[in-house]
Amino acid sequence: MTTPVAVIGCGLIGRAWTIVFARAGCPVRLWDAAPEVLESIPGRLRAMCDEAGEDPAILDRVTTHASMAEALDGALWVQENGPEKLDIKRAIYAELDRLASPETILASSSSALVSSQFAEGLAGRGRILVAHPVNPPHVVPVVELCPSPDTTPETMDRAETLMREVRQVPVRMTAEIDGFVLNRLQAVLLAESLRLVESGIVTAEGVDDTLRHGLARRWVLLGALETINLNAPGGVADYLDRYGPTMARLSDGAARGEAFTPGVAAKLAATLPAPARVAELSAKRDRDLTALSNFLKTLS
Amino acid sequence: MTTPVAVIGCGLIGRAWTIVFARAGCPVRLWDAAPEVLESIPGRLRAMCDEAGEDPAILDRVTTHASMAEALDGALWVQENGPEKLDIKRAIYAELDRLASPETILASSSSALVSSQFAEGLAGRGRILVAHPVNPPHVVPVVELCPSPDTTPETMDRAETLMREVRQVPVRMTAEIDGFVLNRLQAVLLAESLRLVESGIVTAEGVDDTLRHGLARRWVLLGALETINLNAPGGVADYLDRYGPTMARLSDGAARGEAFTPGVAAKLAATLPAPARVAELSAKRDRDLTALSNFLKTLS
Repeated sequence: MTTPVAVIGCGLIGRAWTIVFARAGCPVRLWDAAPEVLESIPGRLRAMCDEAGEDPAILDRVTTHASMAEALDGALWVQENGPEKLDIKRAIYAELDRLASPETILASSSSALVSSQFAEGLAGRGRILVAHPVNPPHVVPVVELCPSPDTTPETMDRAETLMREVRQVPVRMTAEIDGFVLNRLQAVLLAESLRLVESGIVTAEGVDDTLRHGLARRWVLLGALETINLNAPGGVADYLDRYGPTMARLSDGAARGEAFTPGVAAKLAATLPAPARVAELSAKRDRDLTALSNFLKTLS
Repeated sequence: MTTPVAVIGCGLIGRAWTIVFARAGCPVRLWDAAPEVLESIPGRLRAMCDEAGEDPAILDRVTTHASMAEALDGALWVQENGPEKLDIKRAIYAELDRLASPETILASSSSALVSSQFAEGLAGRGRILVAHPVNPPHVVPVVELCPSPDTTPETMDRAETLMREVRQVPVRMTAEIDGFVLNRLQAVLLAESLRLVESGIVTAEGVDDTLRHGLARRWVLLGALETINLNAPGGVADYLDRYGPTMARLSDGAARGEAFTPGVAAKLAATLPAPARVAELSAKRDRDLTALSNFLKTLS
């Protein structure tokens, strides 16, 4: 893999993407609007390699650049990680589309905005898409590829190919939808979890135990649909025959947006680890995610 | 752990419970209404130990009995795994309550029925609860403990203690709710997944990849609530402040019971592994769950 990549916006997500591309062999050209962010990059990337057990020699492929135009020079893929504000995104994409050579794909890490919102009206809107990672992408491989109505199929094909080449797992969508797939699944599960805790039926720890020592063990191996495919002798159709009505009844009774009340925050904060521990526990989470990723590779 | 246990109903779940109790040191007394099931038990248990890497010597603690009364003799915990039919459950519990000594706890593996439905009116209703496992419990440790309004707090305390002693992870609920916790969480996530596949926005494989290579990696380590607690610098309250409105909007737009249509079954069956492979893939799943369980123990 030697596709040259530009990473535009070098916060946490931009740096993690840099590791993804560099370890796969791509030359990676970095730019950030804040010069102090750009200056601190080499040290931060070395620390990330250290923590994730990546060979720091991969960073020889990484260069930093004083302007967006210079970073884009020769790049065939742009991974943009700017702020999730529509006016800023629009300004960035107008600039990217003007400066990048016509065959270059422009991919946004956006989670809150869909690309039609910032690609509309641009000459190169056919080469713009969202490539939404899970943070941090160098330890969690899934990437949602979401087109706008203007994104060309060729752009989607090239995006899917590149993501596989850099050893991520692309999930290709066919149309824009608010929240893509991942956050839609997360939202419904959170709503029901919050309601169960708010009602006092179970503690926050009880909800988390149900996932980490139960449901999520199957989902991390099989996903939710392959899981039910194995939960009835005749596969998924048999499952839906047997359990569909029960699952439908439970869904009909499930919590919705009203579960995200300010009141539930206090109840959760009372038992979850304190904010002062967030940094330490996030570092442990990333170490554990790396170990989990390595473990999962041993299974197939 | 030497609490004597009776396992009533020796299908797949009853046998897996037998391994759980026996490997923790409990004498386990088995009974099943079908004599041919009981006869085949020793061979099946040896095969399960083999597959799960358990020492077959634990089976020295397991005995089979010709009558329910004999199996109950001396047991302090009964794990019942009968069919999920209300009239059968009622008949079993009337019998169990009549035969078991008064200090014995009667726990049902039921997933579809709550215990008030079959404990109502019985003299010993205070000692009856649901202890709902994930199949198979010897490789997936979570157990939902759900009381009826009549279940005594002492019964719940003893149930929680015993489950910890046999190295399962009890999730203690305070009240009956349809589907308990696990199937409620599963139902909402399935509904949204089915709708996304039905609409053609993403394939079944795409939904499963989003979970196994993304969301579920965090959930299997942290659960859903500890996950969001680390997704904002100020912890869960900060997270709900920042992302609560988005998550509420996504939940409000989520699919419900209507997603469980017969039509979606054909679409799923077209891409998921064929029913002929269910047995083979289930065996692989259980091997992988065992390996995952061992891996997760190395993390903390």
